[in-house]
Amino acid sequence: MSKYSIGLDYGTLSGRALLVNVETGEEVATAVYDYPHAVMDEQLPCGKKLKADWALQDPQDYIDVLIVTIPKVLADSGVSPEDVVGVGVDFTACTILPVLSDGTPLCFLDEYKSEPHAYVKLWKHHAAQDLADIMNEKAIERGESWLANYGGKISSEWAIPKVWQVLREAPEIYAKADRFIEAADWVIWQLTGKETRNACCAGYKAMWNKNTGFPSKDFFKSLDPKLENVIEEKFGTDILPLGAKAGEVTEAGSALTGLSVGTSVAVGVIDAHIFVPAVGMKTEGEMLAIMGTSTCHMMLGKDEVQVKGICGVVADGIMPGFYGYEAGQGCVGDHFQWFIENCVPASYIEEAKNEGINIHKFLRKKCEAKKPGESGLVALDWWNGNRSVLVDAELTGLMLGMTLRTKPEDMYRALIEATAYGTRMIIETFREQGVPVNAFYAAGGISQKDPMTMQIYADVINMPIKIAGSEQAGALGSAIFGAVVAGAENGGYDDVFKAAETMGKVRDTVYIPNEENSKIYDKLFAEYKILHDYFGRGANDVMKRLKKIAAEQ
Amino acid sequence: MSKYSIGLDYGTLSGRALLVNVETGEEVATAVYDYPHAVMDEQLPCGKKLKADWALQDPQDYIDVLIVTIPKVLADSGVSPEDVVGVGVDFTACTILPVLSDGTPLCFLDEYKSEPHAYVKLWKHHAAQDLADIMNEKAIERGESWLANYGGKISSEWAIPKVWQVLREAPEIYAKADRFIEAADWVIWQLTGKETRNACCAGYKAMWNKNTGFPSKDFFKSLDPKLENVIEEKFGTDILPLGAKAGEVTEAGSALTGLSVGTSVAVGVIDAHIFVPAVGMKTEGEMLAIMGTSTCHMMLGKDEVQVKGICGVVADGIMPGFYGYEAGQGCVGDHFQWFIENCVPASYIEEAKNEGINIHKFLRKKCEAKKPGESGLVALDWWNGNRSVLVDAELTGLMLGMTLRTKPEDMYRALIEATAYGTRMIIETFREQGVPVNAFYAAGGISQKDPMTMQIYADVINMPIKIAGSEQAGALGSAIFGAVVAGAENGGYDDVFKAAETMGKVRDTVYIPNEENSKIYDKLFAEYKILHDYFGRGANDVMKRLKKIAAEQ
Repeated sequence: MSKYSIGLDYGTLSGRALLVNVETGEEVATAVYDYPHAVMDEQLPCGKKLKADWALQDPQDYIDVLIVTIPKVLADSGVSPEDVVGVGVDFTACTILPVLSDGTPLCFLDEYKSEPHAYVKLWKHHAAQDLADIMNEKAIERGESWLANYGGKISSEWAIPKVWQVLREAPEIYAKADRFIEAADWVIWQLTGKETRNACCAGYKAMWNKNTGFPSKDFFKSLDPKLENVIEEKFGTDILPLGAKAGEVTEAGSALTGLSVGTSVAVGVIDAHIFVPAVGMKTEGEMLAIMGTSTCHMMLGKDEVQVKGICGVVADGIMPGFYGYEAGQGCVGDHFQWFIENCVPASYIEEAKNEGINIHKFLRKKCEAKKPGESGLVALDWWNGNRSVLVDAELTGLMLGMTLRTKPEDMYRALIEATAYGTRMIIETFREQGVPVNAFYAAGGISQKDPMTMQIYADVINMPIKIAGSEQAGALGSAIFGAVVAGAENGGYDDVFKAAETMGKVRDTVYIPNEENSKIYDKLFAEYKILHDYFGRGANDVMKRLKKIAAEQ
Repeated sequence: MSKYSIGLDYGTLSGRALLVNVETGEEVATAVYDYPHAVMDEQLPCGKKLKADWALQDPQDYIDVLIVTIPKVLADSGVSPEDVVGVGVDFTACTILPVLSDGTPLCFLDEYKSEPHAYVKLWKHHAAQDLADIMNEKAIERGESWLANYGGKISSEWAIPKVWQVLREAPEIYAKADRFIEAADWVIWQLTGKETRNACCAGYKAMWNKNTGFPSKDFFKSLDPKLENVIEEKFGTDILPLGAKAGEVTEAGSALTGLSVGTSVAVGVIDAHIFVPAVGMKTEGEMLAIMGTSTCHMMLGKDEVQVKGICGVVADGIMPGFYGYEAGQGCVGDHFQWFIENCVPASYIEEAKNEGINIHKFLRKKCEAKKPGESGLVALDWWNGNRSVLVDAELTGLMLGMTLRTKPEDMYRALIEATAYGTRMIIETFREQGVPVNAFYAAGGISQKDPMTMQIYADVINMPIKIAGSEQAGALGSAIFGAVVAGAENGGYDDVFKAAETMGKVRDTVYIPNEENSKIYDKLFAEYKILHDYFGRGANDVMKRLKKIAAEQ
């Protein structure tokens, strides 16, 4: 009898379950549930308004994903719950919520229903930027050695700024919360009945290090005396490596999902990092780009190198036995969508309609008729700041080279190329600092749907690009971890690399660099780099000054 | 009995006659005639193809303007030809044609009908750029002192590059041509039966100087031995100042136009420079911007100062007794039109249609709702290179500061502001080099139709802006010169300043700088200037390198 594993993939707007054949990697059934509350960035359900840069979620939506999608994949596939040997969970991060000691979210309590700080702070909640700034200043001032593991800068999206914001603005919520927990770990708690913490979230989002632990109490105290014991009081110090088992499905978990009591559940993983086993990556120097509205770069290394401008390096943070490096570009597909919404003339929309294709495709067709460099344009891909390697949210976009003959497709292509240069800049930064990058994989929507962009990337980085073979690679990755924690004796695997090799997949199509194009892109990238450094490294801080002027109006 | 003057204004696509009451400046009647051949930039009427960057016209169209429009304004107004005391003519320049000694254009001869070089080379004929480059090199190499009068660089649009191109590519046309003559002077020749040359065209477009004459024979010889005597052989050295009489209407001229034999005709003026009397400018330090697809800046000075990056300084070249300074921006309204054609989303077009206003107006309405600096954008207005003060056609556009919240109207406004910064850069360059700029006038389509842009200009340059009172200010200026050459004894004027004061006009509306906005624009202009100098003065020649890469594809 075949055995199966279920991957649960929690994104920004929906959660997905994927039921996978453990032996073959076949994706047997899938179900998606859109969060009814989606992202709350303007008001709470009660009508209470939120300030700028807030982004909350309701944890009931996460439970509803379990209730809806797992029974559906079981029913659709006809697979018996007994044959499901394991479950894995990945989630956006840092997506964090305050809970009681039994796991009850504070926002479930009547008295806190209209208290924004009682809800889940979604990864893109940016209202704690001022606190992140102070943390960075303090860490530099005190010479905190862990800072270099995060490229010299921590982000307002991470756990401590978010928790500190609660302490500052809603001290009664902070006091009431027995725990602050990542949503990944919280969902697992719902299934297994116990609190666990995973190395991926803790390492990338809460400054935990396998060898040195969390930052010192002194450091937290320097931020606020009340934070001195924040880790012991509100988090937890028992951090499980990826591939470890979090627990087993309880009676309550079984009642929610229809899974058998005792089914193995893997520890949580961040929704980007989970793609790595899904494409079967297993050696150092392999990089994976998950390309969507933004791009995350995941890489495996044998050594711990503190690379400037990189989001983080975490031991066992992506695959056990490797240092997992993370870098990122805060704005990739979002550039293209912005362009489509704001810069495409009516005549193009009309033409696309007449040809019966969507406008992205129409523009790509026009782009494809052009050669690299032909437009004379170059852009800096900073419409949403720069995550790696400058780590500077205050940077803004630039386009250069326009003439009266410049066409929309030229600008659209320049934006695509700019994001490819941004990826090349990350690759070159790794290499310059002694971390090899030898192979490149891509996953995410763009990799699946946009061959032109992928070819441009291959030409720009001058490396072949392998593409994730699953369109739901996140959920597949979680299913792989589910199969691993089930263990070989239950029809799963004892080794995550073996599981990834068998269940992970890439497409047959590989994007091979065009030598001639790569030569032109070498020249264009040299121009990008000059502009990147001029505007990004302090020679001309015009973008920041303009933002300051804008803020004064 | 009232006396009248006729101004003839020859533009790029049409010619206009305006009949004006000499005593009151009242514009009594006007008529326009579109050139049937328009601009020939792809082929001749016979079907012969033209190369890139060519732009020709057919001089028959200019005669037809006389035949059509003058009788029409006489008929429409009911004014008797005897009461028309003078005629003035302005024309695009350098718009030049090869003719026989009797004025017959070579393209009228059957044997040259399919020879492109026999036609009029319109101002925007750019196919002699390589020759202009050589001229600049030679002039620098030889230390030619006149070069500094043209901001250190002459343009491919000017007379000698165009004539040299004829010599190079069609030596038989060069040999056959008894004269090369500006179209302004040629039209006057049709009316008066004699060849004259005006100080405005000669000074701004053929390097003539009131004190030192034309460049030396040695200089011309250094270009090509056959050019040694080009001035004596093909041009003429008797240059008449503005305000002088070219002659009187002949029998033949009368037959063409219906004007009385003996009517006074003024010497020709360039179609931009002619706006100066039309707004009544009469003292040093007054600057006029003629704002359309591109902008020309005209200024009166008491001294001859060689200002770097200015198009030219010519004694008596705009108004007698003053040094006339010319500067320019090669792309102003063209930026806005480019934006409308390439960057406005369908939803805006739709909304504008629903509101029943044109898209320019719709965008302006959206812009007006925003404050200076609010968008965080700054642009360099170089979509068509930079005429003043960098004199560099190889520069290209830049926009900076975009985020995912940037809207089309933000970019549209940034383009408008960029052109205003370009004007301010010209003003500051004059001032820095000792030429005062104390007052600012605007004429041309933008000044008449776009109050928002004019207010932005006033705020950016921090000076009140007076607006030309006539919508056909070019033709009005020519009529003023017509009234002057008629003389006071015939009901005209003896003094051009008196004539301009009476007949010239500005609107009652003056754009007064908003102090608060000006302060913000001071900051934004400072950013523009840093970028202007960084990209425009050699620190980063990325725009040129990108153009070179583009040319190689």
